[in-house]
Amino acid sequence: MSSNQSDERTIATLIERWATAVRGQELDGVLTDHAEDIVMFDVPPPTDGIQGIAAYRDSWAPFFEHQRAGGIFEIVSLDVTAGVDVAFAHALLRCGTADELAADPDNRLRLTVGLEKRGGRWTVVHEHHSYPLR
Amino acid sequence: MSSNQSDERTIATLIERWATAVRGQELDGVLTDHAEDIVMFDVPPPTDGIQGIAAYRDSWAPFFEHQRAGGIFEIVSLDVTAGVDVAFAHALLRCGTADELAADPDNRLRLTVGLEKRGGRWTVVHEHHSYPLR
Repeated sequence: MSSNQSDERTIATLIERWATAVRGQELDGVLTDHAEDIVMFDVPPPTDGIQGIAAYRDSWAPFFEHQRAGGIFEIVSLDVTAGVDVAFAHALLRCGTADELAADPDNRLRLTVGLEKRGGRWTVVHEHHSYPLR
Repeated sequence: MSSNQSDERTIATLIERWATAVRGQELDGVLTDHAEDIVMFDVPPPTDGIQGIAAYRDSWAPFFEHQRAGGIFEIVSLDVTAGVDVAFAHALLRCGTADELAADPDNRLRLTVGLEKRGGRWTVVHEHHSYPLR
């Protein structure tokens, strides 16, 4: 396995572990691989994105409410491109309540993640979450 | 200037040139730095993204109509993270007709771009375009 494939496996595991923490509403697990200076384009506003780890952390409270009310957050596909020191990944997720997914089974949350290797460790510095506009 | 900063400048120029081609409805310029295997999450469906350069090319026809009808496509901010062989960028754009932007001046198109250095040349392999859901 090349270093590249090894890094792609490491990053895929990181993203799967993060999604598991989201499902479990475990804030520490959601934040563990994330940078102080993260920029997140979330599904809802602010229109110019969420800047920094404190704002990123605060953004999860309403979504955890949604998870507690039976929300589904399931990775359907995940593709990682890792270089020596920078990487990105894109993924499709089933995300919604069971009723929402039954009414619109093909809808997908689209996720792009940008990472840097900092201090020898892959760190999330950017996330972009969206639904297609219909 | 470090190699990293030099690559970041190269990629910023690539993205600015691409946006200029979009504004000019110049399809060759829009496609020139893009990979055969690009995956694009566009503003409209398909919900699982656009796969490959032929589908990417075809996706621009309706947007070029919008540009011809007075659409604005203006980069407001652009942040590039370049490594040795992989890079990503995120940007905010003013995008819409003059009437749409007058009615909703703070709305932003959010753009994330993933790139690989292929054959010594930075190449776009992923784009994610979205508006916040309001």
